[in-house]
Amino acid sequence: MKLKSILNLIIKLIVKLIVKLIIKLINKLIKKYYIYNNLLFVILMNINVLRLDHRSKRDARITTHVCLTSRAFGASKIYLSGEEDEKLMKNVEDVVERWGGNFEIAYKKSYMNLIEEWQKNGGEVIHLTMYGSQVQDVIGEIRESPKDKLIIIGGSRVPTKVYKKSDYNVSVTKQPHSEVSSLAVFQHMLMDGSEFNLEFDGAVFEVIPTAESKRVNINEEKNK
Amino acid sequence: MKLKSILNLIIKLIVKLIVKLIIKLINKLIKKYYIYNNLLFVILMNINVLRLDHRSKRDARITTHVCLTSRAFGASKIYLSGEEDEKLMKNVEDVVERWGGNFEIAYKKSYMNLIEEWQKNGGEVIHLTMYGSQVQDVIGEIRESPKDKLIIIGGSRVPTKVYKKSDYNVSVTKQPHSEVSSLAVFQHMLMDGSEFNLEFDGAVFEVIPTAESKRVNINEEKNK
Repeated sequence: MKLKSILNLIIKLIVKLIVKLIIKLINKLIKKYYIYNNLLFVILMNINVLRLDHRSKRDARITTHVCLTSRAFGASKIYLSGEEDEKLMKNVEDVVERWGGNFEIAYKKSYMNLIEEWQKNGGEVIHLTMYGSQVQDVIGEIRESPKDKLIIIGGSRVPTKVYKKSDYNVSVTKQPHSEVSSLAVFQHMLMDGSEFNLEFDGAVFEVIPTAESKRVNINEEKNK
Repeated sequence: MKLKSILNLIIKLIVKLIVKLIIKLINKLIKKYYIYNNLLFVILMNINVLRLDHRSKRDARITTHVCLTSRAFGASKIYLSGEEDEKLMKNVEDVVERWGGNFEIAYKKSYMNLIEEWQKNGGEVIHLTMYGSQVQDVIGEIRESPKDKLIIIGGSRVPTKVYKKSDYNVSVTKQPHSEVSSLAVFQHMLMDGSEFNLEFDGAVFEVIPTAESKRVNINEEKNK
């Protein structure tokens, strides 16, 4: 009888260990997962963002918001084009360091190469523009395709070749507003709200939602 | 037989005229409506936005994006607090002139008065902050209440009294990103996607959605 319970315990421990290992492996391989009602969901679709025509002086804050929005709503990497802005990239990396996850940021001078490469590897390219097809008409089709997504956020003037090369030109409302809000709402619709359950591993800071004040967990172990 | 068909035609014309008049009246009264599958939907809930602590130099572009986002996603008015910025307000008014609708922008030095007034008139106040209740948990309740909504967008530091006074403190993801994306996704969830069907009356420019290029209607009559 005693032997049986010990055996049981050992089996349980082994199962736990295996599950942990699988999660670690999944995490290494696909970077994004979320846990809901004790179920493990894995996001298989890789979402990257490409920001065109960044100007260090004029766009620093907007582009920073574009970077942080893409991260918070489930992208794993952003490419910046236009002027190289090391300070901005460092700032974004600092946020990732503090708030967790595996978000990457890279500079890409020749963005047409990236677009062609992306498509050659089987991925889809979605260019956000106020002149495109309406998001509510095409998001179902885009979401259902398991292909990796490269979302393009334009700069002051987007060359025609970007419109031509993109698999989708998509507008979020037909009104002028902001590349930050277009990106946020597009990613929210692409993720179908599952971005709210994303886990960001290895965070120093973690917000504990409360109705009336601020609560932040500080993970001292990672706060080196 | 002939008389009957003429009578029928006259009745149809009268009905059409009455419907048009009703729409015009509704438009005057409530500012926002949209037409979907020949049905007329009227947005009765009034949505305003309050932007705290604007700094003319540092925030000009972000606050402009906040203004245009609130308009595009169904707010009828934005109040700016902090530094008075006439240039920014003029810019936003120019966009309204060109792109239609009745969006208003006003400066409000003492925003606590506005919050109290709003609540006294039966409206609800929702403060967007990364530390609040999670949007996916409270949006249903907020949407179902027919009360007018005042959405507060914070500045660099939001005083505790704003947290205390607000009916809801709401976070859009628990990650740091952007007041622009928080506002956009919150309004999108509040409107449940109906912002895509909003009509903006009297526009000079109107985008015609196309899959691969730019098409804009220019209403010469209004382009004085």
